[in-house]
Amino acid sequence: MKIRTATVIGDGAWGTAMGLVLLWKGVRVRIWGAFPEYVEEVSRIRENRRFLPGVPLPGELAYETDLAGAAEGADLLVSAVPTQHLRSVLSALKGRVGATPVVSLSKGIEQKTLLRPDEIIHGVLGRRTPVVVMSGPSHAEEVARRLPTSVVAAARNREICRTVQEVFSGESFRVYTSDDVVGVGLGGALKNVVAVAAGISDGLGFGDNTKAALITRGIKEISRLGKCLGGRAGTFAGLSGIGDLIVTCTSRHGRNRALGEMIGHGRTLEEALGTTRKVAEGVWTSRAVVSLAKKKDVEMPISLEVFRILFRKKDVRSAVVSLMTRKLKPE
Amino acid sequence: MKIRTATVIGDGAWGTAMGLVLLWKGVRVRIWGAFPEYVEEVSRIRENRRFLPGVPLPGELAYETDLAGAAEGADLLVSAVPTQHLRSVLSALKGRVGATPVVSLSKGIEQKTLLRPDEIIHGVLGRRTPVVVMSGPSHAEEVARRLPTSVVAAARNREICRTVQEVFSGESFRVYTSDDVVGVGLGGALKNVVAVAAGISDGLGFGDNTKAALITRGIKEISRLGKCLGGRAGTFAGLSGIGDLIVTCTSRHGRNRALGEMIGHGRTLEEALGTTRKVAEGVWTSRAVVSLAKKKDVEMPISLEVFRILFRKKDVRSAVVSLMTRKLKPE
Repeated sequence: MKIRTATVIGDGAWGTAMGLVLLWKGVRVRIWGAFPEYVEEVSRIRENRRFLPGVPLPGELAYETDLAGAAEGADLLVSAVPTQHLRSVLSALKGRVGATPVVSLSKGIEQKTLLRPDEIIHGVLGRRTPVVVMSGPSHAEEVARRLPTSVVAAARNREICRTVQEVFSGESFRVYTSDDVVGVGLGGALKNVVAVAAGISDGLGFGDNTKAALITRGIKEISRLGKCLGGRAGTFAGLSGIGDLIVTCTSRHGRNRALGEMIGHGRTLEEALGTTRKVAEGVWTSRAVVSLAKKKDVEMPISLEVFRILFRKKDVRSAVVSLMTRKLKPE
Repeated sequence: MKIRTATVIGDGAWGTAMGLVLLWKGVRVRIWGAFPEYVEEVSRIRENRRFLPGVPLPGELAYETDLAGAAEGADLLVSAVPTQHLRSVLSALKGRVGATPVVSLSKGIEQKTLLRPDEIIHGVLGRRTPVVVMSGPSHAEEVARRLPTSVVAAARNREICRTVQEVFSGESFRVYTSDDVVGVGLGGALKNVVAVAAGISDGLGFGDNTKAALITRGIKEISRLGKCLGGRAGTFAGLSGIGDLIVTCTSRHGRNRALGEMIGHGRTLEEALGTTRKVAEGVWTSRAVVSLAKKKDVEMPISLEVFRILFRKKDVRSAVVSLMTRKLKPE
């Protein structure tokens, strides 16, 4: 199977960067965006000023405003739509996609249904559509600037997974394959709760020791729940698990970490949410995680303290003391 | 077994911080240092200006210059001596320690013998002396400032391990137990090679994506070799493995990362080594790792490229291309 043309659904930072990666490999790329005026502007000035400023966009990158038309005839679809909008955006393609593979880049869990993005895609487009979940430590700006980046692509169909691996891989972007669709998807969602905890730690003026311990113990509890939900331990120890968690917890730019930092400075959740239009997924994921952990009888001490701070007005310093003075145990 | 008195061997940053942690728990602590004049100064001005500046040292912290005398009658010995000096320092205690447990804080491998610190301690003090290896993401300055820190303590004897866990644990310092003495020790040594790679990445102007991928793939190869040498996978996924690796690769202060950064800027190894009196263990460890990996037939691509850059004059950019364009594979 040879990929000659691809359509990227979503003109945000990540969709644009993935479009560039495919373009560098000689694929003909079309990018669809939801807002015609903005798409027209990006296409004309050849820069995505709002989401990926400073990156020149080559003339070969075609821009489209009609989704069904843009997707028609493509060898590959790349879905780069925020999880909470995924269902409504894809509905325009219902019954039109067939066996064309979809690479899913969305991270998160749908709030109303608690479904993963790959499950939403199957639900809307049908079971026949092969879905490849791609995830890992990958700021879009760095990918677009050709800084070395490694990710993992997971699919049940091994051949399609390898095709995706090959078409994306190059000197600055390396793709590993996996068959753990569930684990790769869960890592990208559950990490956001730990990122809020990392931000709280920053807000309290804690240091590298605390951050590294939160990341290490955080992936441990993510892995514990993730295994109960069908993911594999090795996946959580990989690029889409610990790798992505490291970037999300240490980068200055993440919105979940930033929200946690405001909480650590003493702001309430309402105040912190009021300062930004961006969605901090970790806030809502913490709710889902706590109820899942309860249902599956899995210990998630860090996520639980984040939930208590956000929704039960627990004082941040007592949360820290709770975590540090839990019953002493083996690692 | 109750620990009432402890002697810390080594008056560097880490020995001093661990002395404070024990003091906070009500233990009577003596610290021994190798240089009488400096020990006298620290004891008088109640500040370790060279190694832990800005941290006031309480009057209860006793300072000693005679090692055998300082160790006599202690319930616990804490060894905080750099690995390459460990053998000669401990020789003063030969035949004098018996069954008193020793907490080993040294990280690294003895260059001449390729032995771990716990093996050196057993070799000098005898097999009867119980050794507990303590390691994890723990900058001494942050521990001394009571910022939350978690580490792992490993010993073959479970009871002694728990005693050490309890005597060190408090509101800002949390100890997990383990019986994987080999894995905990190896993590602290092998990480330094990956830290050099992380520094090279910084020197080349790479970003968070590259760093996170190096850490994730780095612990994977450390774990691969570590398992062949007798460590357990779970240990490398824990505080003394990935946890310590995260701190070492992301902190601005680490000497291995800093040396790598100079190499990334185009300096030669000789130039980089010439700028500092501090030892960058990762340089020498890379040699040991490459020969061990060959002997055990284990793939260590990151460590191998570090070795080639340092000792075979391989160009850093071609090393990056080598890593990114290796045969595509599953995660």
